[in-house]
Amino acid sequence: MKKIVFGHRNPDTDAIAAAKAYSYLKNQLGEETEAVALGTPNEETKYALNYFNEPVPRVVTKALPEYPEVILVDHNEAQQSIEDIREVTVTDLIDHHRIANFETAFPLYAHLEPVGCTCTIIFREFERHAVEIPAHIAGLMLSAIISDTLLFKSPTTTEMDQLVAEKLAEIAGVDCQVYGLEMLKAGTNLATKTAEELITADAKSFEMGGKTVRVDQVNTVDLDEVFAREAELRQAIEAQNAAEGYDLFLLMVTDILNSHTRLLVVGEPQDVVEKAFATKLVDNKAELPGVVSRKKQIVPQMQQAF
Amino acid sequence: MKKIVFGHRNPDTDAIAAAKAYSYLKNQLGEETEAVALGTPNEETKYALNYFNEPVPRVVTKALPEYPEVILVDHNEAQQSIEDIREVTVTDLIDHHRIANFETAFPLYAHLEPVGCTCTIIFREFERHAVEIPAHIAGLMLSAIISDTLLFKSPTTTEMDQLVAEKLAEIAGVDCQVYGLEMLKAGTNLATKTAEELITADAKSFEMGGKTVRVDQVNTVDLDEVFAREAELRQAIEAQNAAEGYDLFLLMVTDILNSHTRLLVVGEPQDVVEKAFATKLVDNKAELPGVVSRKKQIVPQMQQAF
Repeated sequence: MKKIVFGHRNPDTDAIAAAKAYSYLKNQLGEETEAVALGTPNEETKYALNYFNEPVPRVVTKALPEYPEVILVDHNEAQQSIEDIREVTVTDLIDHHRIANFETAFPLYAHLEPVGCTCTIIFREFERHAVEIPAHIAGLMLSAIISDTLLFKSPTTTEMDQLVAEKLAEIAGVDCQVYGLEMLKAGTNLATKTAEELITADAKSFEMGGKTVRVDQVNTVDLDEVFAREAELRQAIEAQNAAEGYDLFLLMVTDILNSHTRLLVVGEPQDVVEKAFATKLVDNKAELPGVVSRKKQIVPQMQQAF
Repeated sequence: MKKIVFGHRNPDTDAIAAAKAYSYLKNQLGEETEAVALGTPNEETKYALNYFNEPVPRVVTKALPEYPEVILVDHNEAQQSIEDIREVTVTDLIDHHRIANFETAFPLYAHLEPVGCTCTIIFREFERHAVEIPAHIAGLMLSAIISDTLLFKSPTTTEMDQLVAEKLAEIAGVDCQVYGLEMLKAGTNLATKTAEELITADAKSFEMGGKTVRVDQVNTVDLDEVFAREAELRQAIEAQNAAEGYDLFLLMVTDILNSHTRLLVVGEPQDVVEKAFATKLVDNKAELPGVVSRKKQIVPQMQQAF
């Protein structure tokens, strides 16, 4: 029975690459699988797919009735998964996130590791089954590691991610730094995006001290280019705070070349933000040198301050 | 920081052996861990521990304050785990059950496979890390595979379990069939047990359709000998249902020589049980030929029927 393999909603490069790589491995092992996506790829992922001559996976929203069995990569929480996840059987799970809101009726194959990228784990799956990784798949997997670790600058990066990336770069025949920077830059083409798109594309909500805190991250190679649109962005955030009931909105604009985040803070309480990062907000903004990771460098600090 | 490694409550041979084996492996890899148990071993496990000259692990009920980090083997559902599981960090999970009622705050290492026994997966962990298995640990791991697969007769048995068992028998220096039958028989000495002990020793709780379903399994070589005590067993179950708030209690009495289960059903809803196994309950009982596995032949069917 054919299975579909997919990553999370609002797919990033790891969600797409991990699905493609694991599907390829499973097919080599004699299963029939197809890598699909729960949304259209972003600019960065499109660059990677195009570079390694891989087609964009088709978008699905439901598994049934065609696919009663599915394979999850790069996520496990139900609210990040396919709509009918509760009605299908998950046979495999390859992931690097915490486990939450995930339940199966049957035993499954699962391989999770606390590393920076799902494709790092999938590399180990290839090793385990002694299946060779073709150059184009290696290229996609490398792209995912570069994306998730921001070229190894994110504090989520592990030694294993770096080791695997080196091997993949060799197989793919690319220079990790040169290719990586090009790919990351391709993902920062913000000029064509509306303010609404910029404050939504990578946003996540958190409950902190009874407040709803929204944190969005926009990657760029030119902070000033983004902040030339500050008035427009503020307006969009204020409208969204009112419409969605967010108390506090943190827009992280991250310079991926210099590992530096400029924070725009709209809503209340602002003093908690100042406390969290031991800084003064000037005109609702703060410079956070070295900060690139929402998961490790923003959310826990905010949680603590609240 | 020292971690404790443990299997589920009401430990069976796999729960104890897997904890011992994985703890040994982790210590070889440079971590400091201790295998503990969430209850005293049963007769079968004691036979295995004694045969391979291994001490009975100490019993714990809470991890905190000494052990903020723990390792789970052979289970993941919170109600089968240590009392304060929600307050500690799970760093590793090695299991062969479905995932349910399991949540972590952080990414973890997890290796699950749909095989007959946790120790089969742990064998692969030894392989992966190229760590040699000492004879006494191999003997315990073999005992766990024999126990979980009822000497390879259970439908949960996979090719992998059989392959690994052969290798372990060689390392341990025992004849799988001869040792296996002796060990299984040691576990069916029911005459000395109270009804309370029989309905508790291998019982697990499951949440299904808002009901708490308790499923216990008693292995025997003589069904009628066990059912000669039916009235006494019913009384004990009714008392326990009332005391613990179980809605429905399924007692599986399994003839391990003939692969046949006689089910005793106490509580409500009974019609769900009839639906699950496409059978009629007669005087709260049903014959289930070929059924020996709670995990494969009872729990999923019940879940589906609910």
